[in-house]
Amino acid sequence: MINWSNLDTLGSYKELKDVKKIDLVAAMSGENGAERVKKYSVKMADSLSYNFAAKEVDDDILAALDKLAKEAQLAEKFEALYNGEVINTGEKRMVLHHLTRGQLGENVMADGVNKREFYEKEQKRIADFADKVHSGEIANEKGEKFTTVVQIGIGGSDLGPRAMYLALENWAHKTGNFKMEAKFISNVDPDDASAVLNSIDVAHSIFILVSKSGTTLETLTNQSFVMDALKKAGLDASKHMIAVTSETSPLAKSDDFIEAFYMDDFIGGRYSSTSGVGGAVLSLAFGPSVFAQFLQGAAEEDKLSAEKDMMKNPAMLDAMIGFYERNVLGYPATAVLPYSQGLSRFPAHLQQLDMESNGKSVNRFGEPIDYVTGPIIFGEPGTNGQHSFYQLLHQGTDIIPMQFIGFKNSQLKNDVDIENSTSQQKLCANVAAQIVAFACGKKDENLNKNFKGGRPSSIIVGEELNPVTLGALLAHFENKVMFQGFVWNVNSFDQEGVQLGKVLAKRVLAHDTEGALTAYSELLNI
Amino acid sequence: MINWSNLDTLGSYKELKDVKKIDLVAAMSGENGAERVKKYSVKMADSLSYNFAAKEVDDDILAALDKLAKEAQLAEKFEALYNGEVINTGEKRMVLHHLTRGQLGENVMADGVNKREFYEKEQKRIADFADKVHSGEIANEKGEKFTTVVQIGIGGSDLGPRAMYLALENWAHKTGNFKMEAKFISNVDPDDASAVLNSIDVAHSIFILVSKSGTTLETLTNQSFVMDALKKAGLDASKHMIAVTSETSPLAKSDDFIEAFYMDDFIGGRYSSTSGVGGAVLSLAFGPSVFAQFLQGAAEEDKLSAEKDMMKNPAMLDAMIGFYERNVLGYPATAVLPYSQGLSRFPAHLQQLDMESNGKSVNRFGEPIDYVTGPIIFGEPGTNGQHSFYQLLHQGTDIIPMQFIGFKNSQLKNDVDIENSTSQQKLCANVAAQIVAFACGKKDENLNKNFKGGRPSSIIVGEELNPVTLGALLAHFENKVMFQGFVWNVNSFDQEGVQLGKVLAKRVLAHDTEGALTAYSELLNI
Repeated sequence: MINWSNLDTLGSYKELKDVKKIDLVAAMSGENGAERVKKYSVKMADSLSYNFAAKEVDDDILAALDKLAKEAQLAEKFEALYNGEVINTGEKRMVLHHLTRGQLGENVMADGVNKREFYEKEQKRIADFADKVHSGEIANEKGEKFTTVVQIGIGGSDLGPRAMYLALENWAHKTGNFKMEAKFISNVDPDDASAVLNSIDVAHSIFILVSKSGTTLETLTNQSFVMDALKKAGLDASKHMIAVTSETSPLAKSDDFIEAFYMDDFIGGRYSSTSGVGGAVLSLAFGPSVFAQFLQGAAEEDKLSAEKDMMKNPAMLDAMIGFYERNVLGYPATAVLPYSQGLSRFPAHLQQLDMESNGKSVNRFGEPIDYVTGPIIFGEPGTNGQHSFYQLLHQGTDIIPMQFIGFKNSQLKNDVDIENSTSQQKLCANVAAQIVAFACGKKDENLNKNFKGGRPSSIIVGEELNPVTLGALLAHFENKVMFQGFVWNVNSFDQEGVQLGKVLAKRVLAHDTEGALTAYSELLNI
Repeated sequence: MINWSNLDTLGSYKELKDVKKIDLVAAMSGENGAERVKKYSVKMADSLSYNFAAKEVDDDILAALDKLAKEAQLAEKFEALYNGEVINTGEKRMVLHHLTRGQLGENVMADGVNKREFYEKEQKRIADFADKVHSGEIANEKGEKFTTVVQIGIGGSDLGPRAMYLALENWAHKTGNFKMEAKFISNVDPDDASAVLNSIDVAHSIFILVSKSGTTLETLTNQSFVMDALKKAGLDASKHMIAVTSETSPLAKSDDFIEAFYMDDFIGGRYSSTSGVGGAVLSLAFGPSVFAQFLQGAAEEDKLSAEKDMMKNPAMLDAMIGFYERNVLGYPATAVLPYSQGLSRFPAHLQQLDMESNGKSVNRFGEPIDYVTGPIIFGEPGTNGQHSFYQLLHQGTDIIPMQFIGFKNSQLKNDVDIENSTSQQKLCANVAAQIVAFACGKKDENLNKNFKGGRPSSIIVGEELNPVTLGALLAHFENKVMFQGFVWNVNSFDQEGVQLGKVLAKRVLAHDTEGALTAYSELLNI
């Protein structure tokens, strides 16, 4: 029997607050620190591991977090989710993105359809389509192969797929997998679509229109923008565009598209990278086999997330430590810092995933809650961040917990040896150095050069950023966010907070405004 | 006589805390809201204005902020700065980036050199060089014109120039100004340099090495990376590279470069976009006349920042309101939200500018302080952000103040009319709608759909994003950060917080480690 209880009704939360805090500087200094690095590590999928030695936890705090995870029934709630319970209570929907990459529990049916089979069928259709595009069986009007794929979508139809594409672009280049160039149009700012269209050869481009509802204003506007450009170039737009949408959307049976691929209401935008939303663009860009490896990595990580024991479940552990930092230690934000240029837009994806899922002030029953929920998420790749905002992370007045990501090897293995080390070694040396600098600090009599330390971080380490490890990383963070939503007792799968802006924007365009809305409309000359 | 006093010693700070807070929902509702929008606006340079109607201020609070700005001597401190006083006390340096775009006060001399003349001379040398590259007088070994310019730099040598380049790329395209493609290599991750080198025609590329000291490890490593690639392509590397550095740096007289252009220690990296650091790449990419307009916009804005009256000084006003939100209202962060795709990396530049300048825990004399300083800065362009992290901004448990930027016109004016409005109108309608939605909220009995409102924002509005308005925007934020540093009595012009990581990274590479540092080195296989 699952209890959906508010955090502050749980006895183990009160106990947790009374457990003695640790002194991170002391804990991480000397040989004790070395022991923590070896001990506080949990295996993830493939070559990855989650190391939390530099977090403000010890065995007592971990035991209290484990007790809370059990009282909050995190494992049981995930089990209910993947077995098809209606977890998205606000919208009365199941939450099924895990089924796009594997089956953790029972068969899940909706309207007489086995959902795992449905997602697999669409993946197969996309793979076949991509193969035909690559072979030239599907080509432009002149029978010439497509060389560029352009995704038109916004939010979850943009950030996740874009981040995944950038992460694997170099890898595909190195491994000689199929490689089409991919571009993305998202913003309703007309300069965005213009810039992309100016940078490509439209005659050899295939466009993917992604909108679950088929009604997203920005996306439909950009569709028209692109169709206009295709027509102006004397091309038949319907021979250059496919759709990824729900079966009930107005786009599903339209003649505007070569083909439509289907998703459904059980997968939210920000959780859709492993569905057709990511599948179409990644399969067209890199080939279906690369996308299959990406799904495999996510499926392996999902299995670990289903572990009941927090200490064997990296997503649950990461979630509980993050919750502790937010609700007990009172930190407002988390910085995501990948030491991998391929992950340049991964923080932007996590920013949506986390802040849109858990930026809520009511519980899953719509009742007010009295504790803080989702933190601010931001980040840039190291070493770039080191030369930018790290100053505040080291010496600012607020403590910002950090999540590092690093790989032992570069993707292309094209490197140069300067002063007895390669660039990759320098990159790895920097992340090691930063973790210790943040945790231990360094005393200096000149307080301007003094580092207090005590700034907590974790690191996910792996051999290489490739499709499998990328899939695992994605699933890790999806499941972390889900577990934190369970702890806070919020619904992590709706986003009512985006509605009011849409309604008011429509009123502005209809000139149905009053008061400040009229005044701002005039200010912006609408 | 200037007093460098801590914030909490100022009588007007105590008074400010006692001034009655406003109810933003009430203030912005009905006709009162419309009046505020008209009244609470300050003119900036060119077509820009700063509108703060949706901030949590009223005439009483503004009066108290003005009193504090006077007691903290913000105008006098800026005057001292631009007249050449040693404001960067930690490094015992003047702070002279304003002189790269104009002269606000007295002649400033260093080592017998008039610094305004020095910066102008270097600008002229860069302009002449760029003109020769564009005419083909300076060309590759085969006498062919360069078509691509690649900046090699990190931190301030990367983020600012990159953000400025992206902001004007479309504009240069539209206006038919000179347009070379520019690329940027920053990260020490070898995959970054590899990806850029794979994407360009090195035989027709000119590289700009940017390092003030000539010792930045990441940048020198990437220089070697690029020189190797040039040699492998059978090219003479010294015919493809220029340097921007200080006159005393080891790069200044090296044979590795076609030419070297000079900067000095009085301009910090994050304040260097209007120096040669931004000047070389922007002049080569767009032509010297575009760069000159950019400087003109910055100079106009600087003049407004020198106004003694806070209500006529948008940077000072913005600074004081931001300070009020941070120190009196207790908000931890500011979101920067440009409704302009051209400003896609402007938030990343501001993140460095603000967090590296004011993320400090000691005052300018190295003494501890008892109040919070610089906030977290993050952001993405709207409308993309609306479909991402805005959920938390609308309904999360913490209040995050916002800084919108919007333009009445797109850059390319290539647009499409869908459902009776253009994309540009939709973009502007969205920003107007968001400001009102955040401020006023909307009551709903279903608390999941309820918007409390009371979430403060400002907007900078202009006709168009072009070189002049971009320069003004840049200077506005530089001066805002400077004024906030004065209020907090910190040194906004050094960055001691980045040193410890550098020292430890060198120790890792030299295998001179112990304890946790050894353990992390092993974990990362260094």
